[in-house]
Amino acid sequence: MDTGETRSQKAGWIFQLEKLLPLGRVSCEPQVLAEHGTDAWLARALPEAVVFPRTVEEVSAVLRFAWERDIPVTARGAGRGYVGGCVPVRGGIVLSVAYMNRIREIDPVDGVAVVEPGVITGKLAQEARRLGYFYPPDPASLHESSIGGNIATNAGGARSLKYGVTKHYVLGLEVVLAEGTIVRVGSRTHKNKTGFDLVSLFVGSEGLLGVVTEATLRLIPHPPARAVIAAGFEAIERAAAAVENILTSGLLPSALEIADRFTVEAARHYLTDVSLPPGQAHLLVEVDGGPQAVREEGERVSQILLEAGAIAVESAWEEDSCERLWSTRRSFSRALSHQGLLKLNEDVTVPRSRLVDLFSFVSELARRWGIPIAAFGHAGDGNIHVNLMVNPNQEEEKTRAQRALDELFAQVLGWGGVLTGEHGIGLAKLSWWPQAVSEPVREIHRKIKRALDPKGMLNPGKFV
Amino acid sequence: MDTGETRSQKAGWIFQLEKLLPLGRVSCEPQVLAEHGTDAWLARALPEAVVFPRTVEEVSAVLRFAWERDIPVTARGAGRGYVGGCVPVRGGIVLSVAYMNRIREIDPVDGVAVVEPGVITGKLAQEARRLGYFYPPDPASLHESSIGGNIATNAGGARSLKYGVTKHYVLGLEVVLAEGTIVRVGSRTHKNKTGFDLVSLFVGSEGLLGVVTEATLRLIPHPPARAVIAAGFEAIERAAAAVENILTSGLLPSALEIADRFTVEAARHYLTDVSLPPGQAHLLVEVDGGPQAVREEGERVSQILLEAGAIAVESAWEEDSCERLWSTRRSFSRALSHQGLLKLNEDVTVPRSRLVDLFSFVSELARRWGIPIAAFGHAGDGNIHVNLMVNPNQEEEKTRAQRALDELFAQVLGWGGVLTGEHGIGLAKLSWWPQAVSEPVREIHRKIKRALDPKGMLNPGKFV
Repeated sequence: MDTGETRSQKAGWIFQLEKLLPLGRVSCEPQVLAEHGTDAWLARALPEAVVFPRTVEEVSAVLRFAWERDIPVTARGAGRGYVGGCVPVRGGIVLSVAYMNRIREIDPVDGVAVVEPGVITGKLAQEARRLGYFYPPDPASLHESSIGGNIATNAGGARSLKYGVTKHYVLGLEVVLAEGTIVRVGSRTHKNKTGFDLVSLFVGSEGLLGVVTEATLRLIPHPPARAVIAAGFEAIERAAAAVENILTSGLLPSALEIADRFTVEAARHYLTDVSLPPGQAHLLVEVDGGPQAVREEGERVSQILLEAGAIAVESAWEEDSCERLWSTRRSFSRALSHQGLLKLNEDVTVPRSRLVDLFSFVSELARRWGIPIAAFGHAGDGNIHVNLMVNPNQEEEKTRAQRALDELFAQVLGWGGVLTGEHGIGLAKLSWWPQAVSEPVREIHRKIKRALDPKGMLNPGKFV
Repeated sequence: MDTGETRSQKAGWIFQLEKLLPLGRVSCEPQVLAEHGTDAWLARALPEAVVFPRTVEEVSAVLRFAWERDIPVTARGAGRGYVGGCVPVRGGIVLSVAYMNRIREIDPVDGVAVVEPGVITGKLAQEARRLGYFYPPDPASLHESSIGGNIATNAGGARSLKYGVTKHYVLGLEVVLAEGTIVRVGSRTHKNKTGFDLVSLFVGSEGLLGVVTEATLRLIPHPPARAVIAAGFEAIERAAAAVENILTSGLLPSALEIADRFTVEAARHYLTDVSLPPGQAHLLVEVDGGPQAVREEGERVSQILLEAGAIAVESAWEEDSCERLWSTRRSFSRALSHQGLLKLNEDVTVPRSRLVDLFSFVSELARRWGIPIAAFGHAGDGNIHVNLMVNPNQEEEKTRAQRALDELFAQVLGWGGVLTGEHGIGLAKLSWWPQAVSEPVREIHRKIKRALDPKGMLNPGKFV
């Protein structure tokens, strides 16, 4: 995008930036730039510099510096996003929080953790658990993605049905605003009704409104026990109906995961040590709580599944066997990737009554466009990962995939569903943004963006 | 505030407004104006007209009309707020949603309810329950306050420890913006990551950013059983320590309520049919879930309470006996009001580790300022209702109470707590707003307000 001239001017600002910060904070190494130009999706764009601040003051200094010079800044957590949300499409600075990765505090009495944004989510969950506490949000990437990235995308996961998503666990934030001002919003308390809910405004804002430098997270007591029940069905419709039966029976499982035939077959074919009951559709149900409660509810779930027509039900009551069933579930994505195809991983969400419709629509879509589609995900939330498997070397197939996505999204929106349940808009869903959100609501987004970042310096080129 | 001249000009607009709407929507009756000039707090201010729209189009017409003429509009739910949040301090129009009170839909399969803002919260909870579903937010006023008011204040209640507050159950909103534009934000799905979290921005915005005309709420399966365990302690410190023991044991009760000696004594003195174990401090714990789980957890709670030094423990395992214990708890506020004193009901929230400190501070405050103070509330959230009991006829005593509140709030903020956990700022806490929120964060509030309501027409005279 830049001419050679502006680029050599910019070399000047990089030199200045290096002087502003302690040694080693700025990199312009081609490999570092390349690594920080993409995420887990397809898009790439090179930044001109990558900065690795270690303190909030350094983040503030970088933002002020960039603000004064009209240099775009794109914040980045662990770079595990699925929609290109942290791809620096306008170049400038990528601000990586990878080295702001300390858990500052876990306080069981207050029921909070205070963390820097680069902390890997799974690590926080582990540390909390050692103290008997629970940080429930569990995106499938939890061992790779960071709290900062989870906050930017309001990450969900399998446990949201019972426990909610990231925003339900963020009590307070330290944020650096576009021009470098450091603010604290929210608090350390479990309830707070002081003013507007600015915490929720920053959570899920995909790096467009500020850079989070610290988060105070809510922890809850860790449930003492859990059970996982896996079931195989002859058809996805039966599995989806079982979901409804479970929820109308007064049970609130901590997870309710569904997978279609394509997914299950890929798992059987590509994974070793796979733990899957027979059948063309797969349901995995987790219940947690006290030991007797788990026994009671787990048996109830098994019974409901059998009554709903499961051809096989497998129950796990110990940590090891639970993890074995989960491990298969968590490997679905990997199994699909083994096929050597490009996996376009969408995360549409529909009102729960449309689950069966969605699976039927998807299988018809696959047939009509000649593109294999694997669908699995969080049935309890209506949040299904629809994976189009595309040959990366066939441009024509990629074009067809785009048109299939057009149809998928139009139908999902038509049902009152949404494009994205937990990944965000980023670049991947940018072209459907106007279809998904009415003009007056897009205008509210623009007004809020202008209010907080009038020069549009934070993560430019995205949905606002 | 108005001169006679502007007032007679305004009489003109009221006439126009009446013509704009179906017959009977506008009232200028002195009694109606008076009734709509106050809430459950002290402040009063007369509106010039009260409008009772029945549809979103009527709400939009009123807002557009007012916007074009610079007439302030203050939206009002059931008028049960505790902070004067809906008091029309700049006059103009009070827009009451009292007649927009239909439950449009309860859909167990989708797990949603669609309601108009005037629906009384307790009524929605009852209707959902009849279908086996649960709307958990339960402010003490739930049988009088409306969903619209609950949304404006992000109402909490006793169940937030396990189930969260109002915002955790709002999936989508229809909102009329200041200038009359009708928008829909959020969706009917249980997960949604499309753009900024505008739903959470409107929830808790105390009528400053828009008027909610419809809400899509999340319902969850109703837990099949519950138990309530009430305990008496010799000292509040012991009761507070028991709270900690319960939470560190892996239990997550659906409620964990605490009350001090003053409150307990008022209940014993003024209530008939009181169900309170002996002791100077009271703890009420509710657990819910499957029948066996409830039995298991309820017994565990009793045991922990006895180990923590409870002098008496009373357990209720049936609906009737549970309700009897709750009924006493819900009457604490009424018992205090029986004394004929003015009850200044604050809802400070502290990090949980400060619970004992808070109770000690409050009793010292009462002694030092010679003002009786009763403290009780949601121990699990650190959200305690501190009630200063003031003689309404003694101006000097009222002044002392204000100074005692100054000290209370300064200390709570010093501990990292907040002025308000669930009531909001309104007018009651306006003078402490600058102390509670830093200037840059207040500036963000102003910027957002200007972005959505540049003329400041919605609920003017409040915290932004």
